[in-house]
Amino acid sequence: MMKIMDLDTPCVVIDRHIVDANLRRAQAYADRHGIRLRPHVKTHKLALFARRQIELGAVGITCQKLGEAEAMAEAGISDIFIPYNLLGAQKLERLAGLHRRLSVSVSADSAITVTGYADAFDDPGHPLPVLVECDTGACRCGVQTPAEADVLARLIDSMPGLRFAGLMTYPPRGRMGEVDQWLLAARERIEKSGIAVEIVSNGGTPDLYAAASVTAATEHRPGTYIYSDRMQVEFGVGTISDCASTVLATVVSMPTATRAVLDAGSKALAADRCAAPGHGYIVGYPQAVVTSLSEEHAVVDLSGCTGRPRIGDKVRIVPNHVCVVTNLFDLVHLADGEDVIAQLPVRARGQLR
Amino acid sequence: MMKIMDLDTPCVVIDRHIVDANLRRAQAYADRHGIRLRPHVKTHKLALFARRQIELGAVGITCQKLGEAEAMAEAGISDIFIPYNLLGAQKLERLAGLHRRLSVSVSADSAITVTGYADAFDDPGHPLPVLVECDTGACRCGVQTPAEADVLARLIDSMPGLRFAGLMTYPPRGRMGEVDQWLLAARERIEKSGIAVEIVSNGGTPDLYAAASVTAATEHRPGTYIYSDRMQVEFGVGTISDCASTVLATVVSMPTATRAVLDAGSKALAADRCAAPGHGYIVGYPQAVVTSLSEEHAVVDLSGCTGRPRIGDKVRIVPNHVCVVTNLFDLVHLADGEDVIAQLPVRARGQLR
Repeated sequence: MMKIMDLDTPCVVIDRHIVDANLRRAQAYADRHGIRLRPHVKTHKLALFARRQIELGAVGITCQKLGEAEAMAEAGISDIFIPYNLLGAQKLERLAGLHRRLSVSVSADSAITVTGYADAFDDPGHPLPVLVECDTGACRCGVQTPAEADVLARLIDSMPGLRFAGLMTYPPRGRMGEVDQWLLAARERIEKSGIAVEIVSNGGTPDLYAAASVTAATEHRPGTYIYSDRMQVEFGVGTISDCASTVLATVVSMPTATRAVLDAGSKALAADRCAAPGHGYIVGYPQAVVTSLSEEHAVVDLSGCTGRPRIGDKVRIVPNHVCVVTNLFDLVHLADGEDVIAQLPVRARGQLR
Repeated sequence: MMKIMDLDTPCVVIDRHIVDANLRRAQAYADRHGIRLRPHVKTHKLALFARRQIELGAVGITCQKLGEAEAMAEAGISDIFIPYNLLGAQKLERLAGLHRRLSVSVSADSAITVTGYADAFDDPGHPLPVLVECDTGACRCGVQTPAEADVLARLIDSMPGLRFAGLMTYPPRGRMGEVDQWLLAARERIEKSGIAVEIVSNGGTPDLYAAASVTAATEHRPGTYIYSDRMQVEFGVGTISDCASTVLATVVSMPTATRAVLDAGSKALAADRCAAPGHGYIVGYPQAVVTSLSEEHAVVDLSGCTGRPRIGDKVRIVPNHVCVVTNLFDLVHLADGEDVIAQLPVRARGQLR
């Protein structure tokens, strides 16, 4: 059996026990609070883990792009929500392909998006479920007011080939009370219009364990919770020991007594920042700071460390933002303790369309 | 013929005429100053462009990782420099595979790296060329003083299966005078030890057009110059109109009058920052600011713009750092004016080992 430290670097190593603990903890929370879990696969992009999430009780999965959904559909996943405005003939044709084969739902935040769906889907016997995206404070996509949500819900409801399926939001962090008020108000308005609001879908890992405080929500779409990362730890979600995915790197240079250089740069760790200093947490060297990344080098300041690695040593790095790291590697290694038990091709990697 | 604006988004579009102009300008400069050009393929990762660089006069190419070199060797490139400390049995075996087939050279900045090479390469009839990496101020890898460079050169020279081939540096930006002094001093010391210094290899696009001021250098390894990007423009290298590689994206949402959301996030544009505000330059909307990236969304502040796009419109984005964008896409589109003339698989993408 190959050991982690025998792997060539840089590579991604995923601890199966941490993954399983993270998945079970979230599912138990959701079950306890009567929330349906619909995990976002953007973080792992692996059919194996999507299936495991469903096995543990998830009602289906979330994909951010059609390409992810197609990869997951091919791997046998049968219930997929794409919380995205899908526009243009190419995407709508692919969406129709998925809709013929499995349960797929989408979102919209404008009449233009809804009209596009309505032009492509016109079978009242098999309507496309569409949720209205609500901007509850994150200032990304979404209608701006409950009144606008109601207008869009009625538009969807009026289209024979579409079915209004509910509301969705990507919420602002730490403001679940506001999110709840927004969604409750929107739901009330739409119900007053005589339209049922079946699903209210909330998301995000930072407030996953406050999901129950959004009383309007029927489901939650956490993504990062499966692996966690340094950013989530900074947000107060678990600790570094809950981080399942690490980048294994080699010390390739020690130009000075306090500077080490690793063979993992921005093409392996990505340049995303978080509140903690530097570009990742080096396991075993908590005081080390990854001060800069080139494309294929990480420069590490060891001046605060007691122990120091030597040239040729391998170290594991917890990335700042794990979801973008997943998208950089064509395959990842699954480990049980120090044993590498599988190589998994990241099928949905790079599925940006 | 497909038009750029017919492509589905997000995708990368490369203007062939800008590429060719950028390549010709650099080669002409190098020729004028008697500098041998050895372009770094990390920026494009395409055999087509590596061949074009050689056709125009480059003496060979530079690859940052073995995997890139293997992909380029497979595509017929026969002279490759890997300016990296290659460590460990797996990598040295792969390096030996390349060394048997083509002209490959590497770098080292420590006795440990040199000893590793010497253990793997022991044929005096076909020695491995090794350059000593010098830290001339960039504070990444490299020996710290000309005296250390001399020690390492003598160690390499003493190994029967290795050949000391010269010096290399990745220089600090805007300090070519210091770089030259450093390299001249190191060359002098090594020559005094009775060892010839055949190659002195400098690099980088920011100071490509000041390369001749490093009088010690015999060759230059620019990478980004082929495409350029917003970071290079901020550094004073050309203008936005010299940027050949753009990400085509669709406006998927206009939640407010001044906020647009594009379908290209950090998984398409990468989170690298530069001196200019935001996460990229939107062609046609010079006042627009990409204020934040999620993984699959770019949020754009249009408040400074006179014209505004509509939902469904496509826009081209000049990325902050193009080399990491290249590494995110499995294929890119080559364009001549508005016509898409080829789809090119990015063979060396993700070759991190």
